[in-house]
Amino acid sequence: MPNTTITAVKGIRAAAMHCGIKASGKPDLALLVSDVPAVAAAVFTRNKVVGAPVIIGRRHIRRGILRACITNSGCANVCTGDRGLEDAVEMCALTARNTAAALEQTIRSEEILPFSTGVIGHFLPMEKIRAGIPQLVPQLSNTEAAGQAFAQGILTTDLVAKSAHATLNLGGKTITIAGHCKGSGMIAPDMGPANGPKHATMLAYVATDAVIDRRALTGLTTAVADESFNCVTVDQHTSTSDTFCVMATGLAGNRSILSGSNLKKFHAAFLEVCDSLARQIARDGEGATKLVTVIVTGAANDADARRAAFAIANSPLCKTAIHGGDPNWGRFVSAAGYSGAKMNPDKALCEVGPITVFKNGRPSAADLSQVQAVMKQELLTIAVDLGTAGRASHRVYTCDLSREYIAINADYHT
Amino acid sequence: MPNTTITAVKGIRAAAMHCGIKASGKPDLALLVSDVPAVAAAVFTRNKVVGAPVIIGRRHIRRGILRACITNSGCANVCTGDRGLEDAVEMCALTARNTAAALEQTIRSEEILPFSTGVIGHFLPMEKIRAGIPQLVPQLSNTEAAGQAFAQGILTTDLVAKSAHATLNLGGKTITIAGHCKGSGMIAPDMGPANGPKHATMLAYVATDAVIDRRALTGLTTAVADESFNCVTVDQHTSTSDTFCVMATGLAGNRSILSGSNLKKFHAAFLEVCDSLARQIARDGEGATKLVTVIVTGAANDADARRAAFAIANSPLCKTAIHGGDPNWGRFVSAAGYSGAKMNPDKALCEVGPITVFKNGRPSAADLSQVQAVMKQELLTIAVDLGTAGRASHRVYTCDLSREYIAINADYHT
Repeated sequence: MPNTTITAVKGIRAAAMHCGIKASGKPDLALLVSDVPAVAAAVFTRNKVVGAPVIIGRRHIRRGILRACITNSGCANVCTGDRGLEDAVEMCALTARNTAAALEQTIRSEEILPFSTGVIGHFLPMEKIRAGIPQLVPQLSNTEAAGQAFAQGILTTDLVAKSAHATLNLGGKTITIAGHCKGSGMIAPDMGPANGPKHATMLAYVATDAVIDRRALTGLTTAVADESFNCVTVDQHTSTSDTFCVMATGLAGNRSILSGSNLKKFHAAFLEVCDSLARQIARDGEGATKLVTVIVTGAANDADARRAAFAIANSPLCKTAIHGGDPNWGRFVSAAGYSGAKMNPDKALCEVGPITVFKNGRPSAADLSQVQAVMKQELLTIAVDLGTAGRASHRVYTCDLSREYIAINADYHT
Repeated sequence: MPNTTITAVKGIRAAAMHCGIKASGKPDLALLVSDVPAVAAAVFTRNKVVGAPVIIGRRHIRRGILRACITNSGCANVCTGDRGLEDAVEMCALTARNTAAALEQTIRSEEILPFSTGVIGHFLPMEKIRAGIPQLVPQLSNTEAAGQAFAQGILTTDLVAKSAHATLNLGGKTITIAGHCKGSGMIAPDMGPANGPKHATMLAYVATDAVIDRRALTGLTTAVADESFNCVTVDQHTSTSDTFCVMATGLAGNRSILSGSNLKKFHAAFLEVCDSLARQIARDGEGATKLVTVIVTGAANDADARRAAFAIANSPLCKTAIHGGDPNWGRFVSAAGYSGAKMNPDKALCEVGPITVFKNGRPSAADLSQVQAVMKQELLTIAVDLGTAGRASHRVYTCDLSREYIAINADYHT
């Protein structure tokens, strides 16, 4: 089996370790380094309350060149004021200094993106990070084991590590795109280049060895975020810390991707990786037993399609019906109805998996025991057509709502 | 003890019975009748998908005169097409005919408001309603027991009946305002005079013996709905059937309330009744163990204050932290942050009960064990100041999210 972790990308090394932030003894410090200055782009949460790493990260991504991503889990460094900013800056400086020494190159602090995930309102235990980073850097490696260690090191309440990998051929050169992400609770990413509105934490790291124009990569990153991570909701609580970063090492040796069919092909492969990561987050949502795809069609416009799809995906009544396998489709139709989207109930349609349950304002003749059987499956699609003259559509990935979600979030103490 | 049910209002009679819709054998048909034509007003859900009773109810309230409210529980008559409309019309006709015969008066079908609450997508069992109404009407009475029976007859998953009562003195005349409501799940009322956006079912019935101008009553009903029921959310799922109706019999003999200080006094007493009913709904939300008041201040405008308050009240992460008594206040601050409301985190404030936990962008020096003790109380207030230059505020009533909510909504089968 070939390496399908992020270290399959030419020029990428990874490492992870336990430095003492998590009481569990699991890895809590993870590092990704590019052997060469990488063309890079990132999008961040649009929550009005953002972590210190997001504030510092936005500054550091401006030049579009990165050397490394340093991540700690177990503490989010959010709502921590000036001290939090100083700590995030120091994490970057420690990473730059130690990595530069190891690679025998000049690496600036501003070429490092900091990531922190965990509880809000606590200061980073800097003594542990100061002791950890010098131990972490010597472990950097391009082996599959290092990629796997990285994928583990970024996790919080996730049950499984998340990985995706794709290759494409451009002009005879093989390009690899691979990445990892974490996220299970506080998941409803709304990431963009600037600050707009959302708190969970979703962190995603994708690397590619493609040679690509910086502006093209920045544009693609925003588009792909909207088509993948921003379509996920576990609990509608947009994090203060969501960050999706991509680094392109350029070591595949292709002609630089700028526009046209090469850009399209790269976009498709990039999206394939991120769409897979997005679905993995929804399936591993806190307490989830199912991966649910909500599809809304027949909307007057894109915003309405999005509104209706998220209303269904976020409704606790829809999520509990799905959890119980209850064919109570009235909850799906009524959620679309309160979303604020334009809707014509007399022409609307609702399908549970392949079964039409509601059509033209009335229940269909569907056999509810068959609907129940479909709803008990692990992969479920709920489709609602709003019945307007419009043709806009939107797709959202979510999960069911279980007692386990309550246990994770009510019994856990900060 | 004086009668504090709706039958304390001069001219109001009530009755309830089990006609066979609910398998449980509990009351499922309830009737409220005014001895005289009552000046009336009603607001209905703004969900785009509405039940047949809402469509018929909007027509019947137009003239502003009502004689009766007929309610069945156990089936919502929603997503039922033309047959559903015919059934709602027939419920009114049956009520008018039987009540007219009993009171020996002329009562028109259009003077009856129909209400149905229960599962969506099923047709009303009309044979049971046809058999029930002629048995129900002879039970009409103005006793306290009849008022209590009515309060029970409208319930679905509610654990307790809900009642509120107030009196005021205008020009030497004592005016009574009293009412009942039901609602536990699918609760996020958004009711208004016209159709705009929301599916739970909340039904509220208030009666008064005040003499009041029809337009004044209509205006007050909209205002009071916004100040009370529309501030409640159990699960953010706005029902297809929410209805709040008020009938004024005019038998108190006061000078007609039109404007000025009399209108203000009446408004205050009317709001007192509806605010009490609204809080009772939140406290009896499905699975609830606590009544939570969320207060947002320092907002740029009313819409922002409302957005931020509902974001906190609807976040499953906030609701589970409250359920567990976890002093994880970062969830409250971050929910305000993703609400879309303008916010200045560096000047924002968060209080849990009387304790300031976050101020000026940083954690306060609060003792988290004290915060935890406050969060374990049955009545809890969460306050967030958004830190803008604005002074708008909003208050929302909600409850915690427990395993019991999952049990009620996932294990229950339609």
